[in-house]
Amino acid sequence: MLIIGCGPTGLTLAAQLAAFADVSVCIVDQRDGPLQVGQADGIACRTMEMFAAFGFAERVEKEAYWVNETVFWKPDPSTPRRIFRSGRIQDVEDGLSEFPHVILNQARVHDLYLDVMRHSPGALTPDYGRRLDDLRLPTSDGEPVVARFEGLEAGDGGGAGEMETVRARYVVGCDGARSAVRRFMGGALRGDSANQSWGVMDVLAVTDFPDIRFKAVVHSADEGNLLVIPREGGYMVRLYIELDQLRVDERVASREVTIERLIDAARRILAPYTLDVEEVVWWSVYEIGQRLCAKYDDVADDDTVVRLPRVFIAGDACHTHSPKAGLGMNVSMSDAFNLGWKLASVVRGQCRPQILPTYSSERRAVAKELIDFDREFAAMFSARPQSSDDEDGVDPAEFQRYFQQHGRFTAGTATRYGPSVLVGAGTNQHLATGFEIGMRFHSAPVVRLADAKPMHLGHVAKADGRWRLFAFADEVAPNAPGSRLAELCALLAADPRSPLLRYRSDDVDIDAVVDLRAVVQQGHQRLVIGEMPSILRPHKGRFGLVDYEKVFGPDRKAGQDIFEMRGVDRTVGALVVVRPDQHVGHVLPLDGFDELVDFFAGFMVPAGRYVAGA
Amino acid sequence: MLIIGCGPTGLTLAAQLAAFADVSVCIVDQRDGPLQVGQADGIACRTMEMFAAFGFAERVEKEAYWVNETVFWKPDPSTPRRIFRSGRIQDVEDGLSEFPHVILNQARVHDLYLDVMRHSPGALTPDYGRRLDDLRLPTSDGEPVVARFEGLEAGDGGGAGEMETVRARYVVGCDGARSAVRRFMGGALRGDSANQSWGVMDVLAVTDFPDIRFKAVVHSADEGNLLVIPREGGYMVRLYIELDQLRVDERVASREVTIERLIDAARRILAPYTLDVEEVVWWSVYEIGQRLCAKYDDVADDDTVVRLPRVFIAGDACHTHSPKAGLGMNVSMSDAFNLGWKLASVVRGQCRPQILPTYSSERRAVAKELIDFDREFAAMFSARPQSSDDEDGVDPAEFQRYFQQHGRFTAGTATRYGPSVLVGAGTNQHLATGFEIGMRFHSAPVVRLADAKPMHLGHVAKADGRWRLFAFADEVAPNAPGSRLAELCALLAADPRSPLLRYRSDDVDIDAVVDLRAVVQQGHQRLVIGEMPSILRPHKGRFGLVDYEKVFGPDRKAGQDIFEMRGVDRTVGALVVVRPDQHVGHVLPLDGFDELVDFFAGFMVPAGRYVAGA
Repeated sequence: MLIIGCGPTGLTLAAQLAAFADVSVCIVDQRDGPLQVGQADGIACRTMEMFAAFGFAERVEKEAYWVNETVFWKPDPSTPRRIFRSGRIQDVEDGLSEFPHVILNQARVHDLYLDVMRHSPGALTPDYGRRLDDLRLPTSDGEPVVARFEGLEAGDGGGAGEMETVRARYVVGCDGARSAVRRFMGGALRGDSANQSWGVMDVLAVTDFPDIRFKAVVHSADEGNLLVIPREGGYMVRLYIELDQLRVDERVASREVTIERLIDAARRILAPYTLDVEEVVWWSVYEIGQRLCAKYDDVADDDTVVRLPRVFIAGDACHTHSPKAGLGMNVSMSDAFNLGWKLASVVRGQCRPQILPTYSSERRAVAKELIDFDREFAAMFSARPQSSDDEDGVDPAEFQRYFQQHGRFTAGTATRYGPSVLVGAGTNQHLATGFEIGMRFHSAPVVRLADAKPMHLGHVAKADGRWRLFAFADEVAPNAPGSRLAELCALLAADPRSPLLRYRSDDVDIDAVVDLRAVVQQGHQRLVIGEMPSILRPHKGRFGLVDYEKVFGPDRKAGQDIFEMRGVDRTVGALVVVRPDQHVGHVLPLDGFDELVDFFAGFMVPAGRYVAGA
Repeated sequence: MLIIGCGPTGLTLAAQLAAFADVSVCIVDQRDGPLQVGQADGIACRTMEMFAAFGFAERVEKEAYWVNETVFWKPDPSTPRRIFRSGRIQDVEDGLSEFPHVILNQARVHDLYLDVMRHSPGALTPDYGRRLDDLRLPTSDGEPVVARFEGLEAGDGGGAGEMETVRARYVVGCDGARSAVRRFMGGALRGDSANQSWGVMDVLAVTDFPDIRFKAVVHSADEGNLLVIPREGGYMVRLYIELDQLRVDERVASREVTIERLIDAARRILAPYTLDVEEVVWWSVYEIGQRLCAKYDDVADDDTVVRLPRVFIAGDACHTHSPKAGLGMNVSMSDAFNLGWKLASVVRGQCRPQILPTYSSERRAVAKELIDFDREFAAMFSARPQSSDDEDGVDPAEFQRYFQQHGRFTAGTATRYGPSVLVGAGTNQHLATGFEIGMRFHSAPVVRLADAKPMHLGHVAKADGRWRLFAFADEVAPNAPGSRLAELCALLAADPRSPLLRYRSDDVDIDAVVDLRAVVQQGHQRLVIGEMPSILRPHKGRFGLVDYEKVFGPDRKAGQDIFEMRGVDRTVGALVVVRPDQHVGHVLPLDGFDELVDFFAGFMVPAGRYVAGA
């Protein structure tokens, strides 16, 4: 497999694929080494959940700036040339995620991914200094995709000008808004081209603006608008200034903007507060529009019945939008998290390649929503503030309300994948209303039965390519007669149609492909692990050691009962099927074994039936 | 400065000293490289707090086994040859610490310290493969301590047999129970020598003992006792077996004990449960007694008026005891945390060398308590369980009560340093009853004023050698007339006697030696950072940037008001003085500026007055 581009998208994909020693992956970039300073910085709650799956969320939590509240400033009605704080909201609503919304520079996120890749079974490192020169798409299923690279001066390859050819079954272009892969694929970004220009600067400054350590949206009467994004470390701050909103005599073509002009604009917007910039760490001006590619892979919608995709694009190669909502990097990484497990499972022979078109359909719908949101949000942001002179302007209070209403969207937790071979119908959604089909599995606190550890249930869902079954027990204790949970476990353990048995080869653990976990209603003090159904304490590995980490109970002591928090039916329980990208694939009744069998049969390949290249 | 020994004690000391680029440190060990498998494993809550000061608590939390509950098993009264679970207790009482009690192997703790050392200003790495051959104590203050080392075969030094001489102002022996430094110093461990022999094994086993993932204390009727300590990673378990408690025909000199005998003993104790050991990862037999060295430095008590210490010992070199309470490594690391900042501040000319004798007096008292506790605890642990045949035995329920009562002791949070030049009198303790003078600063949740970040107040106390003043505001808002907090701040900012001014040179930040933080009673939404006293938003560094991280408020949203939780007087407030090792040095009223001045004058050297070698 070939990944082109070492940005956050390419690295998320590479980190996911590096989890499999049996998947051969190559990741290349034009740059001569890892990124030093990055443009993107906002990390949404949902992205933190994904980082937890990769094992580095706690490091990001420790190092990052936390966006706890967002403040809004607007012109003082009595003295419009002075701004005042008009509102303050909690940035993320309570209970939306167990993680905060944070700010951390992109280069650091890259480093954390590179660490994961290096230490994964695949032991993957990027090849830098190679520019994609040609990409030949296959004309038949047996042919590989052929990519030709030119070695660049600063690369670690054979040297400047040297050509290398890579043959790969799948190629993914994570090569940004000017994607070469997209060009070779014949795709294009469509939409409003470069309708907004922005200036952005990371500065060390002395100011008496009191909210310099809050995310702040500042609308001035006549001088334009800016966004304050405090940075990690306590001192640096990022200011985004929308250049088109500057006064007419300040509006200049972005190529003529200087850092001095940007600083001056920021000072005028923040008046009456002072701003003395002591050091400019980084600055840039860019033009951006809301644009979207029609297809994220190389197969036209009409052709999917006869041909399956072999070349994909992800991230900025598919969609561009303004930085205001701080979503770009997050949506891009989610593209890769959606695609990674699908590619791995197809290459490894676990899933049929027919699942691959779901990548484009699922992720393009998300980008479409994002772009619609961004267009509306950007328009409100850019509109002149309402005043007695200008009644057509937008009331900043309205902008604040809009911002608040769309909090789930900007947190990345609103994404919902529509029904498909990988996402079941909502027939049994009522059994677990808080685990919405198609949306990410919303974690909640539990206590592990075997060692009383308080933890988050969702954190067992690592980025390891496995499906997970979370079986929430019915009212009968799992060690008592008539327990639906025990009956399901008996089928999963013994019926040859069981997804746990059917899709794994004999030489791997029972949970290697589908990982069953149970949540019982009783606390750990009232149940004995030895009385749990045997498949919930499976013997694993060379020594047949018992895995004690399959059963959980509610965290009653913390007053947090997962059954209540997530609307799980206490009488009959529920079976929540979770995809490798943490999205809920299905909700079924505990006695829905047949439906479970059918669901998995829709996309998985029974063990031993895999034909390479199929 | 010379540190001998790279165990947890030596590494804690080295990590603390590496924080100062201007302190020259050398750390040596006999071993040929970092430890691979370690004996110690328990990490008490208090130690986790210290790890937080070094910046790696969150990694230990992630990797370690969490001791959430401890279970007790004893002979079934009706069938004494079978054990049953007689009790279950929460391991750490609620609110004792923000950190859990965890288990992580010692080698991993070493790695984390080595990382800290490498990345500190001192960029310190150990010199391995050197054995202390001679240590010459100075006869006058002007002379150095002279240590001679012999290079060992496997070392990275000049080679086997090569001699090296190191001259150091201070030498610390962290070289274990058979300490060579102690021998050269003329000290000896006194107490019960080797009165207990223990077998310990880290195994991968299959068992139906239901509490194999809990810390378990198991008393059998006739087969002896054992301790189950689950290990990180979910599978490995450590079993401690007291050999003297085995049946007469099984009691053998420890040198004749084999791993097969240990496993057999464990199986008999755990009956009727089975235990199949699949792999022995590590095992050992050792004899241990409760022993203590009379002095932790090279100056006899009578001589302290004429001479100051130059050679110290810490950790196992000072005290040995049984592993039952899991305290050894923790007390040893705390020795080093107590000594490290004192040595650094003396060498750097900030404190007078007269503070050095407090190390021995403060830490020896702790070890004395530990040994008394251990003797009592060990006796109860080893006693035969009470039964109808043996009424003199100890009722395991009594043992359980004892264990519970001493939870604060085993968590390491009960340590209290007595009054000295570094610990004030309790005259004003009533102003902040939850910050007990001489005990560690008991952290509590707060919200940072400038960015609304919820955090733990105690976590601002890093292992950076600085003293901290936590000023808890009085009832008057800090921006209103008559605020005692504001008045204190004014004195601290301007009075030449202010500890913030008097002990720092002009070329460093205002908080370089004494770091002032304030906790106000109002939430962050009701106060503006710009209206805080200016010393609470100091300009720092080359650019004079504002440090916004000095002021905090209660975390009302979480329902956790630090004033209430720690018994701080809401009317008049309180000033809590915290030492660089996180122990409370003093509690004073906010208008106690003169007492504060006097307290610091008792041990600090005004800037510019330092005479090298004084």
